[in-house]
Parts: sequence; structure tokens; C-alpha cells
Amino acid sequence: CTNARRLWQRIMTMAEIGETPAGGCCRVALTDEDRQGRDLFLEWCREAGCEVRIDRLGNLFVRRPGTDPQRLPVACGSHLDTQPRGGRFDGVYGVLAGLEVIETLNDNGIRTRSPLEVCVWTNEEGARFTPPMLASGVHAGVYPLEYALARQDEAGITLGEALEEIGYAGEQACGSHRLGAFLEAHIEQGPILERHRQTIGVVTGVQGSRWYRLTLLGQDAHTGSTPMPGRRDALVAAARLILAVRGIAEEHAPEAVATVGHLENTPNSHNTIPGRVTLTIDMRHPRAEGLETMEAALRQAVERTSAEEAIDYEFSRIMDTAPVGFDDGCVEAIEEGARALGHAHRRMVSGAGHDACHIARVAPTAMLFVPCAGGLSHNEAESAEPEDLAAGADVLLHALLRLAEP
Amino acid sequence: CTNARRLWQRIMTMAEIGETPAGGCCRVALTDEDRQGRDLFLEWCREAGCEVRIDRLGNLFVRRPGTDPQRLPVACGSHLDTQPRGGRFDGVYGVLAGLEVIETLNDNGIRTRSPLEVCVWTNEEGARFTPPMLASGVHAGVYPLEYALARQDEAGITLGEALEEIGYAGEQACGSHRLGAFLEAHIEQGPILERHRQTIGVVTGVQGSRWYRLTLLGQDAHTGSTPMPGRRDALVAAARLILAVRGIAEEHAPEAVATVGHLENTPNSHNTIPGRVTLTIDMRHPRAEGLETMEAALRQAVERTSAEEAIDYEFSRIMDTAPVGFDDGCVEAIEEGARALGHAHRRMVSGAGHDACHIARVAPTAMLFVPCAGGLSHNEAESAEPEDLAAGADVLLHALLRLAEP
Ligand SMILES: NC(=O)NCCC(=O)O
Ligand SMILES: NC(=O)NCCC(=O)O
Repeated sequence: CTNARRLWQRIMTMAEIGETPAGGCCRVALTDEDRQGRDLFLEWCREAGCEVRIDRLGNLFVRRPGTDPQRLPVACGSHLDTQPRGGRFDGVYGVLAGLEVIETLNDNGIRTRSPLEVCVWTNEEGARFTPPMLASGVHAGVYPLEYALARQDEAGITLGEALEEIGYAGEQACGSHRLGAFLEAHIEQGPILERHRQTIGVVTGVQGSRWYRLTLLGQDAHTGSTPMPGRRDALVAAARLILAVRGIAEEHAPEAVATVGHLENTPNSHNTIPGRVTLTIDMRHPRAEGLETMEAALRQAVERTSAEEAIDYEFSRIMDTAPVGFDDGCVEAIEEGARALGHAHRRMVSGAGHDACHIARVAPTAMLFVPCAGGLSHNEAESAEPEDLAAGADVLLHALLRLAEP
Repeated sequence: CTNARRLWQRIMTMAEIGETPAGGCCRVALTDEDRQGRDLFLEWCREAGCEVRIDRLGNLFVRRPGTDPQRLPVACGSHLDTQPRGGRFDGVYGVLAGLEVIETLNDNGIRTRSPLEVCVWTNEEGARFTPPMLASGVHAGVYPLEYALARQDEAGITLGEALEEIGYAGEQACGSHRLGAFLEAHIEQGPILERHRQTIGVVTGVQGSRWYRLTLLGQDAHTGSTPMPGRRDALVAAARLILAVRGIAEEHAPEAVATVGHLENTPNSHNTIPGRVTLTIDMRHPRAEGLETMEAALRQAVERTSAEEAIDYEFSRIMDTAPVGFDDGCVEAIEEGARALGHAHRRMVSGAGHDACHIARVAPTAMLFVPCAGGLSHNEAESAEPEDLAAGADVLLHALLRLAEP
């Protein structure tokens, strides 16, 4: 079994980098906090005797050699970046659970035939650079390297520049590094395990998600002297669409979710009718047909609302991640681990996107979830129990051994 | 008559300070652009032989002496600050029309019994420091000096600090400077004169306005893994209230207007349900009872929406400016000027607030409007015709002479 106390303490130590007053974490991709987090992690890895490879997008591959040099590495891992007001477990857990597996094998003098690896994928959250899960996407051939390097944050800094700045632009070509399997441990970020009082989610796949950017163009005008009829208020149009987005999710209940998370209002002055609003829409559904009908409804709502409100608009899909089904063998390895260790578990589909979605294209892949309090994530109050985190690491150990041995 | 070309050229020269790519002006209160605008204006005033006084809030009083030193000054003026994406005429016009009156009297060697003054009031727009019309409010005893000096912008800089920074914190006690009358010339900022093809609005009063700040507190959560039921989405609640605000104006048609101009969404991440939204609501009505029933409806909407969306909230009124009726003598001086000069004119109530609203408490006051294209203001495309601007300056000259002479 893994060392629950060491795992917990490392998660807490990592959480000090970018800690927020409300007990959360702000370690946004390719900031100096991200650099510090990576430095600390790699220090632990080197102490554990691992080899480190870094690719051109800053993805980290930390290897514990196997006894059979011919075999591809059996990998696990997740990401170290966080939301701007994120929690202490999202991503970090999967990375440090992987390291804990390696430490446990070291402690017990156990060798594996396949090498074991822990991967850290750059810019999973998509908070600073869209789309999320960007560098795992490049690894899997979903996006070209140049596309990723050219992504800009709101200040106009490119991902490539930010990567150079923190000194994590590596030499290894993206995607050249092949994996024999990939398992990602993560907090659930939803309420299902907690509601069913289960410890392990055996994740069989991930729902699809599409992101859209919408710019609404009305006309700046004085709030006091401009009569109500004839106004072209971009924020009123945005309000109608925010409610339409929720309505579309409700029409596709119970599986669908849809959200406006990001909104910029311009000129954002108390006494000026807003002439320009930019917002992003995030829609998810476990089936491709669901995403299709939701998108059709969204396009219709945008058209109708903008016509009725005399608003011009620009609308584009900025991300499209199809629903993913994971590899049966990897799913069974996790399920078998949970069963063998006696942890209450269930099969489930992930609501959130994960690097594993992309990696599933190029390696047999699956995920395991552990519960988080209230299903809350992307929130500074995100919280998980040390025993659940240890249970997840144990299942990961069990599954990795099964995949790395035969 | 005034010199239409000189007036137009000065407006255009002033517009170069803070000019925006789209042809507007960004000369926000107490920024370096505001300092440059003040410097330029005072240079012109000194060339015209005027005396300059500056009070502790940076209000400027530019005097052309009269022949009777016992008499109070007959004043005009407006403001030099702009909206962040403002136009070239709002405020500036009334200031430079006042200077043009003085230049015209100089050119023609005409003396007046009363001194003539042009006033420039600090922070009229309220874009950087709320409330708007702040320094004229202090002049009139509506707000204490300390309140004004302590107002903060979004970066936490106080008005007092910003004023020191640009070197316009004067010596003269606020409100100590008495005015015998005050006339404010301004672009209409609404569509009425243009619609009726009239050149001069004789402004008999200003509608009342109330501003509110509302903070909606929900819960940050993951957009993908958080089911729709049970969400506490502050932006959805904000959207409902933005529509409710418009609905309240429509229930009080045709006189009422109501707008959400300012909105901050937090954490403003594509894949996080917004846990916190702050917005301001601007409601206006020509009668106090109208403002009362609108406020009651707003409070009810906030309560109902927040209860239904499981949102906590903080709600406060941050400005309350009662409807104002101007001085009959001043109104008649303007009307008589328009009539004498043969300009098509109408009596009207101002939709926008103006420094004149406050000054009306301490001196006989009125305003005159000239048309602006499409009634558009608080917009970079704000535009007015040189002939209309000159006509307004001529009427101002006529009215000031009438008040300054007898
Ligand atoms: N797991 C997680 O928070 N992923 C971010 C990408 C997403 O929005 O699903
Ligand atoms: N005239 C003008 O733009 N005033 C700003 C104050 C207001 O919002 O009415």
C-alpha cells in the first residue's frame, strides 16, 4: 500500500505554491507559480531516482526504469496548473499519486518489467490559454505544435513566450514519446461518488464538450438620455443568451450541462449602455448527437436574439472535444484494483474534460476518480479526504502493476 | 456673434488629447490626459487675459473681470473629463463655448458690469470615481469634501491622490466661491432636437437618477461536472436581473430609463460557473414618485431572483439625485436669446445628469442644449455640427450678457 501521509503532505506542500487567502490555489499555466510547482515536483522525482524528459511544450515525463528495456512505459499523471481561483487537488492529485506509486515501489524494492512514468501535461485548465488540455492534445496529434505555441493569453503573451520565460521549453519533439498505457487519477469534481458513498469511480469515458466565443455588437450610448426604444444594448442581448444557454441544457436534461463562464462587458461604465459584450459558452453532453442538437439550438437563439435586439455578432466554435470511450483493458485494471482492495466503486462517465481524453487516441487509457466534498471543484474550497486520496493511489498502484508486469 | 471657426478648432485641438482610434476621446477624470486638457484650456484662458482660481477639488474658475467689483460673477461652463470610450463634445463643448464668449467680448471690446466666469467641474462623468458630478456636488454642499477626496477608483487610488498626482489640488475652499448665476451649454446626448429639427434646447430641468450597486454571491464550480440542478450561478442571476431592469423601465414608459452599464464577472474562467457578479443599475425618471416605484420593483426583483437562484446578495444605493427644476430667470434668458437670434428651439427636460443639477442649489441656474448626431453620446462616434455649436455659443453669449448687464 502507498504511504497516505506522504501523499497528503506533498499535496499540502504543493498547495503552498500559489496559495490563496481562501484556502485555494492559483497556479495558472506557465506563470512563475507553475514554474515553482514544476521545480518542486522534479526535485522530488530526482530524489526518487527518476529520469526526467521534457518536450517542446513543457510536458514532463518522469521515468522509473523497468527491467525490460524493449517495453513501452506504462504511464500515469495529470496536470499541475490550476484555475485562477482553483483548489488544491484538481490535477495535482493525479501527478502526486503517480509519484507516490513510484516511491512505494522504491520503498518495497519492487521492480517492474515495463518502465513506469508520471506525465505532467501543460495547460490543462485552459484558464490562461484556450483550449484546455492543449499540450496533451498536441501529444496526441489533435493540434499542431505551432498552433499551441501561438495561443495567446488576454495580455497577448503567447504560450511559447510564457514557456521560454519559465524555462520549461524542452528539447523532445511533441508526441515522439510513446506510452504503452496511460491512467489518470483525479478528484471527481462532481457529486456522484459522495452521493453514493463510494470511494472509487472507474471512469469508462468522458462526455463531449464544445466551447463557443460570441461577440455581441450594439451601440454605446448614454444611459440617461437615450430612450428605451431604439437602444442596442449588448448586455441585454447577452443576458437573454445566458438564460437561453441554461434553457438549452434543461431541454437536454438530465445529461446536458451548459454554462457561460466568461464575460467581458465594454465600455463597462455605469452610465453608458454597453456597446460590446464578449462571452464564452461551454456545452457538454455524453453523446455526439446531443452536442449537435444543443449547438443547433444555440445558433438559433443567437440569431433570434441578435435580430430582436438589433445586435451584430461574431460567433465561432473554439473547441470541440468529442465524447471519449476508454480502453477496456485499462478500465478493467482499475476496476479489478478497486475490487481487490475492497473499495466501494462504480463505473461512471466523466463530466469534466481531462488530458486522458486526448491520450486515449494514442495509448490505451482510463481514469479513476476519488470523491471531493460536495462535488465542488474550480473553487478555492475544493476538498478531499486523505483516506480517499490514499485509496485512489492504492488502486492506481494495483492497476499500474497489473499493466506493467505481464 | 461668436467665432464659429475658432470654437470648432479649439474643440478639435482639445480632442487630440486622449483621442482614440475610432475618433473618440478618452480623457478620464484626473488622469494625465485630464491634466493635459486642463493645461491647454488654462493656457488659452491666460492668453485671453483671464484670472484663474482652483479649489481643493480641482474645480477651475476662470474670470473675466466686470466693471462693478461688488457683483457676483455670472458663470457658465461644464467639464473636461470624458467617458473611457467617450466623444469629443460631451462637457468640452460647454467649457469652450464659455471661453468663446469671453474671446468674443474681448474681440469686440465689450465690458460687462458683472464679472464673467467659466467653470470646469472635476469628475463629472463618474466613470473613474463614483458618483458622477462629484465636485460640483461638493461645491453645492451635497457631499462633504472628505467624502469626495476619499472616493476610490478600481485600482484603489483615491480621488485626492489622483488630484495631487496631476497637480490640480488648489487652495481655495470648496463652495466658498459664490456664483451670481450659472448657465451650462451641452450637447443634448439624446434624439429630441434632431428629431424635431430644432437647434436650441431650453432646458427647464433634469430628471432624477438613482444608481445601485449589486453583488450576487453564488458558488464557483466546474462547468462540466456540476449538474444543472443545484448550481448557484451568479451570472445567471445577473442575467435575470439585467432583463428585470429593462422590464421595470418598460413598465414606467415612456419617461423612464433603466440600464445595467457595469458588470464584473468572477472568476471569469471559461470552465468555471461564476460565483460572484458585481453590477451597477442606473434608473432615471423625471418625477420622484417614478423613482420610488422603480426602486421598489427593483428591490423585489433582486429578492425574488436571488431566492430562486440560491444566491446571496449585497445591495446598496450609491447615488440619488432628485429631479431638478431650473431657475425661471435663467431659463428665460436662454429662451429669449434663442428667440432673438432666430434659432428654432424648444423647452425640454434633460435625460442626462449635469453639474448644473447641483449648482442649481446654490445659484440661479439653467442649461441650453444643441443637437448631436443620432442623439448619440458616451460613444466615440459622438458628433455635432459646427453651425449648431456656434448657435449654442451665440445663445449663451446673449443670455450671459443679459444676466451680467443690468
Ligand atoms: N478536469 C478539469 O478541470 N478539466 C478542465 C477542462 C474542462 O473544462 O473540462
Ligand atoms: N452629461 C453626462 O454625461 N453626465 C454624466 C452623468 C450622468 O450619468 O448623467
